[in-house]
Amino acid sequence: MTTTSAVTATRRTVRAYHEARFRGDVATAAAQIGGSFSFRSPFIASTSPTGHLDGLDGLLGIVTGVELISELYGEAEAILVYDVHTAPAVGITQHTAEHFRLHDGRITSIALIFDSAPWQAIMSAAGPARDEAAPAV
Amino acid sequence: MTTTSAVTATRRTVRAYHEARFRGDVATAAAQIGGSFSFRSPFIASTSPTGHLDGLDGLLGIVTGVELISELYGEAEAILVYDVHTAPAVGITQHTAEHFRLHDGRITSIALIFDSAPWQAIMSAAGPARDEAAPAV
Repeated sequence: MTTTSAVTATRRTVRAYHEARFRGDVATAAAQIGGSFSFRSPFIASTSPTGHLDGLDGLLGIVTGVELISELYGEAEAILVYDVHTAPAVGITQHTAEHFRLHDGRITSIALIFDSAPWQAIMSAAGPARDEAAPAV
Repeated sequence: MTTTSAVTATRRTVRAYHEARFRGDVATAAAQIGGSFSFRSPFIASTSPTGHLDGLDGLLGIVTGVELISELYGEAEAILVYDVHTAPAVGITQHTAEHFRLHDGRITSIALIFDSAPWQAIMSAAGPARDEAAPAV
């Protein structure tokens, strides 16, 4: 595989994952993930292909839009930068970066970086029952 | 300028900025920044070329190492992902993403993304006097 086609394949897999995730299509998102996988965000560490997608419906219920700011691709990795806009009652614009590593055309790790402080303020105001809503962000 | 040389120029400028910043060389870091510039992080919004570097010495006093995880470059933008390791007394490993936009070989915007919650916990424990230490992260 040439460098260019490897980069193109990376882009195809990562975009398929990203778009599936934000339309709530867990099956298609999970289909982009390799046999060995790890996920890390401020709220979650998971090695299951779909563990980090648990509660996705709850998240999507408050997300009003995802604005892709930047997407850069390499042969075996990618980084997306995007803003997640939420409903006025939540009032958070989550500036997000997502770093992917890939092997053989499948995603083997995701590191999600965002500021959890606004979510933690909401969760502590709402009490323990809200803790389940935020982790899938 | 060809695409390849534009990407090479982006890499040169961004790496020069990144390395200068973490060795405390404000003059060299600022020299990579264009006439029009904006910076945003969880703690700072600034349009001055060096406003976001105020307090850099305080930050570097607690940083023990910077581990570059990923660097991806385009013709007019770049994203770095890195971990900032801090002294045991601070105990934070800051997973960081930094998105740069460039024009004519100079940096015109930086968006720094990281989880501010651990810093806010330290600041609230230490009281208002500590507020000056964290923003330059």
